Amino acid sequence: MQPPTTNPAPVRAFASDNNAGVHPEVLAALTAANVGHVRAYGDDPWTARAVARIREHLGPDADVHFVFGGTAANVLGLQCVTQPYHAVICAQTAHIAVDECGAPERFTGCKLLTLPTKEGKLVPEQLPPLLHHGGDQHHSQPRVVSVSQSTELGTVYKPAELRALADAAHAHGLLLHVDGARLANAAAALDVPLRAITTDAGVDVLSFGGTKNGLMGAEAVVFLNGTKAPDFKFVRKSGMQLASKMRFVAAQFDALLADDLWKRSAAHANRMAQRLGRAVEGIPGVRLARPVEANGVFVFLPRAAIAPLQQRSFFYVWDEETCECRWMTSFDTTEGDVDRFAASVREVCSAKAMAR
Amino acid sequence: MQPPTTNPAPVRAFASDNNAGVHPEVLAALTAANVGHVRAYGDDPWTARAVARIREHLGPDADVHFVFGGTAANVLGLQCVTQPYHAVICAQTAHIAVDECGAPERFTGCKLLTLPTKEGKLVPEQLPPLLHHGGDQHHSQPRVVSVSQSTELGTVYKPAELRALADAAHAHGLLLHVDGARLANAAAALDVPLRAITTDAGVDVLSFGGTKNGLMGAEAVVFLNGTKAPDFKFVRKSGMQLASKMRFVAAQFDALLADDLWKRSAAHANRMAQRLGRAVEGIPGVRLARPVEANGVFVFLPRAAIAPLQQRSFFYVWDEETCECRWMTSFDTTEGDVDRFAASVREVCSAKAMAR
Amino acid sequence: MQPPTTNPAPVRAFASDNNAGVHPEVLAALTAANVGHVRAYGDDPWTARAVARIREHLGPDADVHFVFGGTAANVLGLQCVTQPYHAVICAQTAHIAVDECGAPERFTGCKLLTLPTKEGKLVPEQLPPLLHHGGDQHHSQPRVVSVSQSTELGTVYKPAELRALADAAHAHGLLLHVDGARLANAAAALDVPLRAITTDAGVDVLSFGGTKNGLMGAEAVVFLNGTKAPDFKFVRKSGMQLASKMRFVAAQFDALLADDLWKRSAAHANRMAQRLGRAVEGIPGVRLARPVEANGVFVFLPRAAIAPLQQRSFFYVWDEETCECRWMTSFDTTEGDVDRFAASVREVCSAKAMAR
Amino acid sequence: MQPPTTNPAPVRAFASDNNAGVHPEVLAALTAANVGHVRAYGDDPWTARAVARIREHLGPDADVHFVFGGTAANVLGLQCVTQPYHAVICAQTAHIAVDECGAPERFTGCKLLTLPTKEGKLVPEQLPPLLHHGGDQHHSQPRVVSVSQSTELGTVYKPAELRALADAAHAHGLLLHVDGARLANAAAALDVPLRAITTDAGVDVLSFGGTKNGLMGAEAVVFLNGTKAPDFKFVRKSGMQLASKMRFVAAQFDALLADDLWKRSAAHANRMAQRLGRAVEGIPGVRLARPVEANGVFVFLPRAAIAPLQQRSFFYVWDEETCECRWMTSFDTTEGDVDRFAASVREVCSAKAMAR
Repeated sequence: MQPPTTNPAPVRAFASDNNAGVHPEVLAALTAANVGHVRAYGDDPWTARAVARIREHLGPDADVHFVFGGTAANVLGLQCVTQPYHAVICAQTAHIAVDECGAPERFTGCKLLTLPTKEGKLVPEQLPPLLHHGGDQHHSQPRVVSVSQSTELGTVYKPAELRALADAAHAHGLLLHVDGARLANAAAALDVPLRAITTDAGVDVLSFGGTKNGLMGAEAVVFLNGTKAPDFKFVRKSGMQLASKMRFVAAQFDALLADDLWKRSAAHANRMAQRLGRAVEGIPGVRLARPVEANGVFVFLPRAAIAPLQQRSFFYVWDEETCECRWMTSFDTTEGDVDRFAASVREVCSAKAMAR
Repeated sequence: MQPPTTNPAPVRAFASDNNAGVHPEVLAALTAANVGHVRAYGDDPWTARAVARIREHLGPDADVHFVFGGTAANVLGLQCVTQPYHAVICAQTAHIAVDECGAPERFTGCKLLTLPTKEGKLVPEQLPPLLHHGGDQHHSQPRVVSVSQSTELGTVYKPAELRALADAAHAHGLLLHVDGARLANAAAALDVPLRAITTDAGVDVLSFGGTKNGLMGAEAVVFLNGTKAPDFKFVRKSGMQLASKMRFVAAQFDALLADDLWKRSAAHANRMAQRLGRAVEGIPGVRLARPVEANGVFVFLPRAAIAPLQQRSFFYVWDEETCECRWMTSFDTTEGDVDRFAASVREVCSAKAMAR
Repeated sequence: MQPPTTNPAPVRAFASDNNAGVHPEVLAALTAANVGHVRAYGDDPWTARAVARIREHLGPDADVHFVFGGTAANVLGLQCVTQPYHAVICAQTAHIAVDECGAPERFTGCKLLTLPTKEGKLVPEQLPPLLHHGGDQHHSQPRVVSVSQSTELGTVYKPAELRALADAAHAHGLLLHVDGARLANAAAALDVPLRAITTDAGVDVLSFGGTKNGLMGAEAVVFLNGTKAPDFKFVRKSGMQLASKMRFVAAQFDALLADDLWKRSAAHANRMAQRLGRAVEGIPGVRLARPVEANGVFVFLPRAAIAPLQQRSFFYVWDEETCECRWMTSFDTTEGDVDRFAASVREVCSAKAMAR
Repeated sequence: MQPPTTNPAPVRAFASDNNAGVHPEVLAALTAANVGHVRAYGDDPWTARAVARIREHLGPDADVHFVFGGTAANVLGLQCVTQPYHAVICAQTAHIAVDECGAPERFTGCKLLTLPTKEGKLVPEQLPPLLHHGGDQHHSQPRVVSVSQSTELGTVYKPAELRALADAAHAHGLLLHVDGARLANAAAALDVPLRAITTDAGVDVLSFGGTKNGLMGAEAVVFLNGTKAPDFKFVRKSGMQLASKMRFVAAQFDALLADDLWKRSAAHANRMAQRLGRAVEGIPGVRLARPVEANGVFVFLPRAAIAPLQQRSFFYVWDEETCECRWMTSFDTTEGDVDRFAASVREVCSAKAMAR
C-alpha cells in the first residue's frame, strides 16, 4: 500500500501532544498482541495484565477499566458517582467544561459549576460558597470536585495541594475526580510516582490518560481509596465505550507502564517544553504567560506575528483577546524541533519588530 | 517485552468474529500511518483518503464519519435522524434491541419497537400495523426502520428485499437504517458490490462495520441518498466518539477498502462457515437451525454435548431453551480450524449418542 | 365572565374517565385551601395532612410525594429505583409502554421489556425467561416489574395475584411497581382496602392516581415496604414536577381520601360499567371483549356501527383490526347516561343489522 | 370537611409571590369550567379560548401551548429550539441556571453559559466573546440567549433593551428566549401591553407565567415571530407536561387575560413593592440593594435583624455573605400587610440598633 499522496513530511509541530503518533514500543506491543483468538470485551490476558500493571502503580485496590477516549473517561467516571441532580465543581478552564461539547451534562445530567482560577488550579477555599444550598431541591447538589492534572494551562498540582482539595471535598461529602489526560507529565514534572498524586493524595476517581503520552488511543478510568464502581461495565457499554477487541486497548497501557515508558516519554516532553520556554524568553514582544511546569508553553505573542508563525508550524491561539498562544511538546519532540521553532519565533517576531 | 505468561496459544475458535485479531495488512497500514505529526480529530490526509475510499464504493455524495465502535455507529447514526419522541422499528433479534445495553434508548431517547421475524429479517408487511398512531401525542412516532445486514442470525437480505423495505419506509415518511457490522459478509455472500446493498437499495443511514472484518477497532457512519448530517461532528463529540488520533482509525478503513481486502476477508470467512455447516450436517443429534448465508453457523446441539464442546473450544449458546448454538468464522479461520472443530463436534456428539 | 360560546352542553360520554370534570367535594376543598399565604413547594399544612391521609391507608412508613400527572408518577417512581442500564418488565399494553410517548425511556434511560398477556395481566411464569442475561454487560438488566391496577383492559389483579408477582420479582432481586392510575377502581371492584392491593401485596413503588377518579390533576408516588426515595425531591424538581402552590395538589388528595370519596366515586363508576355491560349484551353484533371488572367496558362492535355511534357520543376504537372498542365510566356517569347510550347502541346496531 | 388543624391564620407574608393562593376570579373560572365531559388533552373549548386570548395579546401567529409549571415552560421551550450539543447563554442569576435543579441540562442536554450582570440584566456586548468557537466540534454551540423578565433581582428590561438583545442574538444566528414567570409584572411596571416586551421586541420563545400572578398552577410556552414548534405536543408529552384535564389549566389563563386581570394583579403587586420599598428606606441599617422596578424588594439588613424578622414573617436571605434579603409582593398583598411588615422591620432594626 502506498502512503497517501498528500502525506505530510514527517515533521513534529507544537499544536498539540495529540498530533503526535504512537510510540514505537506501543506499536510493537500492538503487533505482539495480534496473535490468535481471545475472548472479546476484556476477558483476555492482555487486559488482565494491564489492570495488574495499573494496580502496581496505584495500589492493589484500584478498580480499573479501559475506554476509548479521554472525554469518555471523564464522563463515565463521573457518571458512576453522580445522579442527574448533582453538580460537578471545576475550573472555568477545565476540559470537561470547555472542550467536551457538553458531553458531561448530556450523559450525566449534572450541572457543571465553574470557578475562576489562578493558573488553572482550584483551591479549597473556593468550595464553601458553592455549598450553601445543600439539601435544597431547587439547586443541583454539588457531589464532585474535578481538577485536571496537569492543568489545561500547563501547571501542576503539588501532592499537598491535591490532598488539601481532597480533604476539603471529603469534609463536605464530595469526591475528588482528577482528569489525568496528562497525569504522567505531572508526575514526571514533580518527579514523584503516579501514586503520590492519585491514591496517596486522596483522589477518588481518576481519568488516567494515555493517548497524549504516546498511545494510539486508550484511557483508563480508575476508582481509588475505597470508591468502587461495580456497575461500571454497564455504564461503559451503555456509554458506547466497550471495545470488542479490548486486548488492543489494554496492550497499549501495558506497554506504557512497562519499563517506565510513561515516565521516559512524559519527562522528555516536559524537558522539551522547558527548552522551548527558555529559548523564546527574551525574544522581543514574546512573554511567557504561565510558568512552564509540564509539557505546555503559554506565551503572549505580538498579534502580527501569530499568523506568519502558524503558517510555518501550526498552533492554537488560546485567548483571542490577549494573544496568548499555546505550544505543546510530546514524546517525540526533538531538540532540533525546538531549536528550529524557537528560531522561527525569533525571526518572525524580529521581522515584525523591524516592520514597526 | 515478554508476552503475557497466560498468553493463550495462537488458536482460532468459533465464539465470535471479534475474537480474532487484526489483519496483517491493517497492522501494516497502522505502522505506515505512524509518521510525524498531523492535525488531530480528522483533519489529516489519512482520514481524507479513507473518506474518499468509502465514496468510491458508496457514491460521491456519501456523508462519511468514523467512530470507535459498532454500538456507537448505530446510536449516533440514529441520533442524527431522530428526536427523543420518535421510535425505531427493528427485529426482536436486532443488535440495537438486544446487545447494546440500552444505549440506543439512553442516548437517542427513542423507543424501540421490536418485531418477530423469520430468520432475523423484517418484511415490508410488518410496518403498517405500527403506524396507526401517526400524529398521536401519546405514542412515540415511528421514524426509522433499522435492519442488520447480514442479520444476527447469519442470514442476508437480498438487494430487492432491502429495496422493498426502503420503499415501504419512505412511503410512510420513515428512513431505512442498516446496521452493517457485517456488511462485507453480506456483500460477499451475494457477490455484489457494497453499493448494491446500501446506496442502490435506498438505504439512508449505514453503520459500516470494520472491526468484525479484521480491523482493530473502527466503524463508519455513512449517510446516503440525500440524507446528510451536517451536525454529525457535534453529535460525535458529545457522544464521546471523536478520536483525537483519528488517522489511526481512518487508516484501518483505508486498508480495508484497498485491494479489496474487505471482500477477500469476508468471502473467506463465509467460505469457512459454509465448510463448517457442511461438515457437521449428518452428525447425529446436530441440525442446522438456519440457512448458512454469511459467516455464522447456527446449529441445534444435543444439550449434553454443549458443555464438553465449549470446553474444547468456547462458543455461545444462542437459545438456552432450544439448545441452538452459534459458531462464527472470521478472516483468519483456516480450513484446518474448521476440520478440527467439526471433528470435535462429531466426536463429542457421538460419544454422547453412545452414552445414551 | 361568560362561558365559552362553544361550551358543550353538560353531557357525560364514555370516551374516558379523564373527560369528566372535578368532583364537587374536591372543588370545595380547593376553595377551602385558598386562604392566606403558606410556604410553597410542599412545606404547608395541606400537604402534611394529605401525606398523613395516605399513610392512614397504606401504612405509617409509606414515603409519599405528589406530582402533576400520571405519566410523571410512573416515570419518577421508576427513576428512583433504576439506573439507565436497567430494564423494566411490563405488559405490551402497559401505559408506560404504549401511552407515554417514550417518556420512561427518555427520562430513566431504561429499556422496556414488553410481554404479551391474557387480559392485560402479567403472571410470574413470564419473568424467568427474561432473566437469562443477569450480569451480562451487553444487556439491559431487568430491575422492575411494572403492572397496571386496574389494567388498561379493565381487568383487576386479585391480591394473591399481585403477591405472587411481588414474590417472584423479589426472588430475582427485582421490585414491583404498580401503575395505579385506576387503583381506586380496582380496590372498589375487589371490595378491599387500598392497602390490600399495595402495601400488603408486597408492592414496592406505587403510582397512586387521582385524576381519573375525580381530581382536577393530582397523582402521588408512594414508596412502600421499606423502599425509600430520600432523593425524590431532587428527582421531582429536575423532572419538572414540583408544584410551587403544592397545597392545591395536596388538598385534592386530602378530599379524595376523606369520607371515603375515593371509594364512593370508584364504586359508582364500576357499577355504571357493569350496568353498561349488561345493557349491551344481547344486542345483535355486540359482544363483550373482556370481563367487566372495573370501570371499563370493552366490546366488539359491527364495523359499520362505530362511526355513527361515535357521532352520537365519542369513544375510542381500541383495536382497528378487530373493531374492539373501549367505553369508560366515571364518578359522574349517571344511570340515565348509561341507559341512553345503551339505547343508542341498540338503535345503531339494529339499524345496521336491518340494513344488511 | 374541616380545615387542617394546623391551618395557618390567613396571613400574607413577603417570602414569595407563589406563597399566595389563587385569585378569586380564577377560582370562579375553574368552577365555571367544571361542567359535563369534554375531550381530554386540550381538545376542548376552554383551551381553544385561552389560546385565542393569548393571540389577542401576542399576535395571531403566536404558537401557544400550556404546561404545568414554570421550570417546564422554560425547559420545553428551549428543548424545541435546541439540540443536545447547543448552549444557552443566560445570566448567572437566571432561574434556569440556579433554581431548576439542573432540569435544563438534564432534559435538553445543553450547556448553560452563565454571565455576570448588573442587576440581573444581560447586555448585547456580552455575547460576542462567547461566540469565538462557532463550528468547533469541541465546544457546545451557543443557540439561544435566555433572559428573565422581570429579572430574578426585581429589575425590568425596557422594550428597547430587549430589542437590542434580540437583534444581537439574531445577528449571530441565535434566538431570544424570555423566562416570563413574572412577565405581567414587567409589562405593568413599564405600563406597556404584553406584546411590547415579547412579539414586538423580537422575542422568539416565551415562557408566559401565570402561577406567580394569581393562578393555581398554569404556564404557557409561546413561540413568536415565525418560530414554530410543530412537534411541541410530542415534546410536552414525553416531557411529562401534558395535562389530561387541560380545560382546568386553560381556564386559568382565560381568566387571567379576561378583563385585564393580569394587569390589575401585577400592577397592584408592583405598587405594594414600591410602598414597601419607600416604607423601609431610612430605617437605620436598612438599605435598598436594587432599584424596585417590579414586585420584588431587595434590601440589605443588619445581620442580627434577619432571624427575628423571619420569625415574625418568613422571607429568604438572597445572599448569605452580604445579608441581602428578598421580599416579594403579590396580587393579594394589602396596604395593611405592607405597613405592618414595615413597622416590624423598623421595630426589629431599631431594637438591634439600641442593643448595640
